[in-house]
Amino acid sequence: MNVAVDVVRAQILAVLAGWSAPADTAATVADVLVAADLAGVDSHGVTLLTEYAELVTGSRLDVTARPSVAREAPATALVDAGGGFGHPAGVLAMRLAVAKAERCGVGATSVVNSHHFGAAGYYAALAEREGMVGIAMTTAHTVCVVPTRGAVPMLTTNPIACAAPDFLLDMSTSTVAVNKVRVRGLTGQALPAGWAVDEAGSPVADAEEAGRRIAEHRGGLTPLGGAETTSGYKGYGLNVMVQLLAGALGGGSFAAIEDPGRGGPDNIGHFFVALDPAAFRDAADFRADVAGMLGALRATPPLADGEPVLVAGDREAATRQHRAVHGIPVPDAVADGIRHLCAQLGVPFLLAG
Amino acid sequence: MNVAVDVVRAQILAVLAGWSAPADTAATVADVLVAADLAGVDSHGVTLLTEYAELVTGSRLDVTARPSVAREAPATALVDAGGGFGHPAGVLAMRLAVAKAERCGVGATSVVNSHHFGAAGYYAALAEREGMVGIAMTTAHTVCVVPTRGAVPMLTTNPIACAAPDFLLDMSTSTVAVNKVRVRGLTGQALPAGWAVDEAGSPVADAEEAGRRIAEHRGGLTPLGGAETTSGYKGYGLNVMVQLLAGALGGGSFAAIEDPGRGGPDNIGHFFVALDPAAFRDAADFRADVAGMLGALRATPPLADGEPVLVAGDREAATRQHRAVHGIPVPDAVADGIRHLCAQLGVPFLLAG
Repeated sequence: MNVAVDVVRAQILAVLAGWSAPADTAATVADVLVAADLAGVDSHGVTLLTEYAELVTGSRLDVTARPSVAREAPATALVDAGGGFGHPAGVLAMRLAVAKAERCGVGATSVVNSHHFGAAGYYAALAEREGMVGIAMTTAHTVCVVPTRGAVPMLTTNPIACAAPDFLLDMSTSTVAVNKVRVRGLTGQALPAGWAVDEAGSPVADAEEAGRRIAEHRGGLTPLGGAETTSGYKGYGLNVMVQLLAGALGGGSFAAIEDPGRGGPDNIGHFFVALDPAAFRDAADFRADVAGMLGALRATPPLADGEPVLVAGDREAATRQHRAVHGIPVPDAVADGIRHLCAQLGVPFLLAG
Repeated sequence: MNVAVDVVRAQILAVLAGWSAPADTAATVADVLVAADLAGVDSHGVTLLTEYAELVTGSRLDVTARPSVAREAPATALVDAGGGFGHPAGVLAMRLAVAKAERCGVGATSVVNSHHFGAAGYYAALAEREGMVGIAMTTAHTVCVVPTRGAVPMLTTNPIACAAPDFLLDMSTSTVAVNKVRVRGLTGQALPAGWAVDEAGSPVADAEEAGRRIAEHRGGLTPLGGAETTSGYKGYGLNVMVQLLAGALGGGSFAAIEDPGRGGPDNIGHFFVALDPAAFRDAADFRADVAGMLGALRATPPLADGEPVLVAGDREAATRQHRAVHGIPVPDAVADGIRHLCAQLGVPFLLAG
């Protein structure tokens, strides 16, 4: 079932209103989720409402919290999300980074005491629209990634996003995100070797088994690179780098260490950087060089005719164009979950088409 | 043959003197190469002298050049390496980033018109010794990495390094660096599947064939993640991110686009970031959280007894302790190349032991 973009947005706003979220917070959350749905990042769109419902119902997330600046230097800031949604905290922090980059050449901001902020790429792209190179990273709360040589998961999927003109990278530092395993499970497909391992390090092909193992901390997802022989320790290292920058630097939790006194794994942290190309060289020259590089990459002789070499963000840009016209496909399972949520909250269910 | 650390340093200084490099430039190059040899990063130690000799002899590298600040903002700077060694330019740029971070919370600097700067981790560690979180990236000149879906190499190995207390990540964004393939060739070992591909995307197991294919641009190394099903496009995306930050941002070349007017692939670029934890939170709390996280990772139940889970930099730290006492092993092939170089330059060969 395809649903018009405005209807998806209205549905998100209706649910947020049902939670008594302030209007500006609701508008920001809707913006972030709709952008993901439009780009085809379905795991980070309207479907997240049912996950957020667990946080709100369990009183782990304060929907009325407003982010505030807790510490500031000329080119940096720490934002306290106050235990609320990550989205408004992320937007505030990235806007601060951009403002600081306009004055200082670079701005770097961190968010502490936050929750899920949607897709990291949203924030990197926000900075890019202001003429910056944008970088965004975040920690998470589901411990699911196994470090190299380890038998149990210790890490979250810790994504890195980077945006430049006509380039938008947004990737977890695991081989795949948890949701990719779930999707394979729903469609009954086997997992490719290298995605998930058991507690002996052997590949797990069954998606439901992989999901159970993650839940029971008996194996989990591989870091990017997979096995040690194919340099999985690099993905593991990148994952820890994100944990350092988005977690420890601002005071966010390391989810594998439960510490209820500090908010435990729900004290999610984010990290943002904005770089002003004009601080380094003529901005037009920078844009020309980026265009030349990306153009050369897209023109690489391909392995197969009709499957051209892409650049990060190309697929999402094409999906965005298509969905802006044809609407956002909402699977029945997602619609059912949101219908149920709407009934609980007493707000209108709008995704019927 | 093991050679004392001071002798390796003296050998590097002797060769640099033979090239008429200024004493301070020579000291910096020696420092960077010796640090790599000490840490067991043998590909980036004294062995590089023979590679640098080709640049110097071919007049592509100006040994007398001194790096200078070409553009500056409160928290950023562009350093022009003047076509000289990357090492002094890198040290100047990272020191500038640290000084700016002390005042502004973060500093980000870029280097243009440079050459090879040794191991990226050296510069990240330099910032860490000043109490910062340090990040270093660089472009390179050997086009050897094949983008996802591509039939030919378009990318260099573009490493990322990050240093925090007791953590030092230094990794190429390809599955393996070119040198790892060379080492397998020298020892006659097959390449694991996933390291190198031919122009049809099929694995190449023979190291010498992989080397030939890179030289002839018929296949090459995979990006981190390997094939598309195991998310090689993420390593490809990270590689492009490094090219954007270390290349385009400062005006460095994209090696796959030959542009002699701009110095072609020899216009190497570097990128450095220093972040002051004290700008975000109490620095002692940051250090305690990092120690807690890294300790928990090292205590992960391992797959195999006696093979504990490591953190990036652990192996190198152990090697450093050992080699500081027992010296640096210099393979005969490396010693022979340097003996030949010394004879050409009329400087003493010191590595005899």
